[in-house]
Amino acid sequence: MESFFELKTPDEVFDIIDRWGPVGEEIVSLDDIMDRVLSRDLTAPEDLPQFSRSTMDGYAVKAKSTFGASEGMPALLEVGGEVLMGEAAKVVVEAGQAVKIPTGGMLPEGADGVVMKEYCSLLDEETLEVNRTISPLENVIQPGDDFRQGSVFLNKGHRLRPQDLGVMAGLGLSAAPVFGKPRIAIISTGDEIVPVDKPSLPGQVRDINRYTLGALCRRVGAEPICMGVCPDDFEALKRMSEKALMDADSLWISGGSSVGTKDLTLKVFETLPQFELLVHGISISPGKPTIIGKSGTQPVIGLPGHVASALVVAEVFMTRMISRLSGDTGLGNHFYTGLEAELSQNIESANGREDYIRVKLIEEGGNLIARPVFGKSGLISTLVEADGLIRIDMNTEGLYQGDRVRVMLFNFRDGDLR
Amino acid sequence: MESFFELKTPDEVFDIIDRWGPVGEEIVSLDDIMDRVLSRDLTAPEDLPQFSRSTMDGYAVKAKSTFGASEGMPALLEVGGEVLMGEAAKVVVEAGQAVKIPTGGMLPEGADGVVMKEYCSLLDEETLEVNRTISPLENVIQPGDDFRQGSVFLNKGHRLRPQDLGVMAGLGLSAAPVFGKPRIAIISTGDEIVPVDKPSLPGQVRDINRYTLGALCRRVGAEPICMGVCPDDFEALKRMSEKALMDADSLWISGGSSVGTKDLTLKVFETLPQFELLVHGISISPGKPTIIGKSGTQPVIGLPGHVASALVVAEVFMTRMISRLSGDTGLGNHFYTGLEAELSQNIESANGREDYIRVKLIEEGGNLIARPVFGKSGLISTLVEADGLIRIDMNTEGLYQGDRVRVMLFNFRDGDLR
Repeated sequence: MESFFELKTPDEVFDIIDRWGPVGEEIVSLDDIMDRVLSRDLTAPEDLPQFSRSTMDGYAVKAKSTFGASEGMPALLEVGGEVLMGEAAKVVVEAGQAVKIPTGGMLPEGADGVVMKEYCSLLDEETLEVNRTISPLENVIQPGDDFRQGSVFLNKGHRLRPQDLGVMAGLGLSAAPVFGKPRIAIISTGDEIVPVDKPSLPGQVRDINRYTLGALCRRVGAEPICMGVCPDDFEALKRMSEKALMDADSLWISGGSSVGTKDLTLKVFETLPQFELLVHGISISPGKPTIIGKSGTQPVIGLPGHVASALVVAEVFMTRMISRLSGDTGLGNHFYTGLEAELSQNIESANGREDYIRVKLIEEGGNLIARPVFGKSGLISTLVEADGLIRIDMNTEGLYQGDRVRVMLFNFRDGDLR
Repeated sequence: MESFFELKTPDEVFDIIDRWGPVGEEIVSLDDIMDRVLSRDLTAPEDLPQFSRSTMDGYAVKAKSTFGASEGMPALLEVGGEVLMGEAAKVVVEAGQAVKIPTGGMLPEGADGVVMKEYCSLLDEETLEVNRTISPLENVIQPGDDFRQGSVFLNKGHRLRPQDLGVMAGLGLSAAPVFGKPRIAIISTGDEIVPVDKPSLPGQVRDINRYTLGALCRRVGAEPICMGVCPDDFEALKRMSEKALMDADSLWISGGSSVGTKDLTLKVFETLPQFELLVHGISISPGKPTIIGKSGTQPVIGLPGHVASALVVAEVFMTRMISRLSGDTGLGNHFYTGLEAELSQNIESANGREDYIRVKLIEEGGNLIARPVFGKSGLISTLVEADGLIRIDMNTEGLYQGDRVRVMLFNFRDGDLR
């Protein structure tokens, strides 16, 4: 019989994962900083914008020169030159004067507003008819309207998006400090595993987890370091694990984590410096025989050998681990984003266990349907056919046909949905 | 007054964008192929798995040897050896015999099922007591159960996910043909624009769009080629555009696309070989002064100069353009995925125009609230504060407080939501 697993619930596992923090810090240039996580608050070194700018094509004026102007009673202003793009405005605007200005042009001294050109007409080269009253600061952005010098404009822990890079560029920051990109060492164990470019003999299978887990790491901003295939040999796995922890921030071993004669991963983990076992089994399906521990501060993870189980555990728990190691405070892929769909059939589930069910999404009459993809355990085709996962809570005995479910998508940019 | 814009609706623009197809084809290795789009159907070169495998630790038997066995009436079988991982099973199983087999082990000749070890106990070294009846093929995966040799296992146009790489690895494919990665040449125009590493003088602003648009391209799988800043000069912009179309698959110019004295982008586009104007203005806000044309088959795009408008147009339309150029049949970022939230206040909108409103997401008592972020046009801080966009349809005059809206997120991995 199986020995006793002290299973942790998924929530207990998330709490354990959330104790980890970011790995390292580096300065990265603006061209490469997209999707990285800030390691410090960023403070504006200057005002943005640095000068008052027009938001419209028109004429810069003192607003009071237009007070009372209307179509029936236009104001007549003296044209006093023109502001050119990219140059300091050289003229000074007095009461009763107007200076031509383009969108984005620098507001000349004396002016406090811009009349859109649609409300103006030139009577002659020197006389402008304005048929609308404007208020002070109309169509004008003032210095610091975006961000004030000295203010924090992006916070530590923020993952950088295109617009964040834009603000940094606008403020003249060509690089910024970010947390390190977590390096994840991946080892596939098993006497039956051969590399992808070797012919497989009867009884052998090719190394799949290296590619599935490596690609998942890349997708969530980590750098996979593939250590290769290791036979089910204690000394060999110990040596490879020790090397991995020197080269990487975290070690993932797939295979060998079920209880029994092959409980090699845990035996090797127990020899690592300052090893502490945190999780030995999670009350989920698939993915129960998962090990989470630490060697010093480095997470060491034993994932199931089955490719489908390993990938589900990685999607649900390891993306969050990578968020923590990246210094990001987010939830990983954990179901926050995703699509709502209607379940196509009843699904039973054992109480006391969280089930992750693969589903395919189908559009029927404008309605999104989630159809469970069943199949023998150990098949990878079920994951290829599926578009995502739905979760069945520990405390329910299943879901009913027609229930609204949230689908955690395998690929946010999936092209198969039309 | 403004000259006449023949505005296209967003749906008309999507139809125009959907006419473009993929650019080029190349062979990419498994390590780099994540997120690329297959340019051909992939056919399985062999069965997966290649041999019958056990899905459990237990004993391989002829199922009929267990017929009638139960706890009260166990079957007694003769133990005939052991299957080792990674090796061809050498023994042959006869009626009345059992061979020890691990999970993933190769089923020996003669056996057609596996009894889980939990239902077995060894009486002595040669005698196994089995207290359960199994059916033929129980706990066994057969050759080709995942994919049959010769069958199409992934389709042309599919964007590759971690599990797809896994199947390719399992089948021994170390590379595959994919569509080219679209190269997007980006030019920022404007006499006022200076590069980010130059101090900005009064009247000048730094080049923001290069970074926002470049980062957005990368995020959706395109390769930005930053051509640099170009002054508002016809000849200079023409030369830079011609060079861009030699280096890239598509040209994006930001700035200069509003009607008026600065309608330089369109004038330059009109000099390009076989130019055809497809869209001159879209009935959306922000982003109306957008130009879409083609030079031969290459898309040439004029984006608004305002960073906020340019980025909204890029999020809504250009991500879909990049999907098409990538050979992906998906919808870009266009609102398929995203979060549902409750609108915090009424928003007015002009009829006959599609409005894209920046919103911040706030969690209140387990409920997700979308709060509009308003601000003067031309400010980038509104985009930094916002988590995403909501769309107000052309044919409605606004949305009401409490309405359920779908938020297109700027960053699918946003860490600010807890």
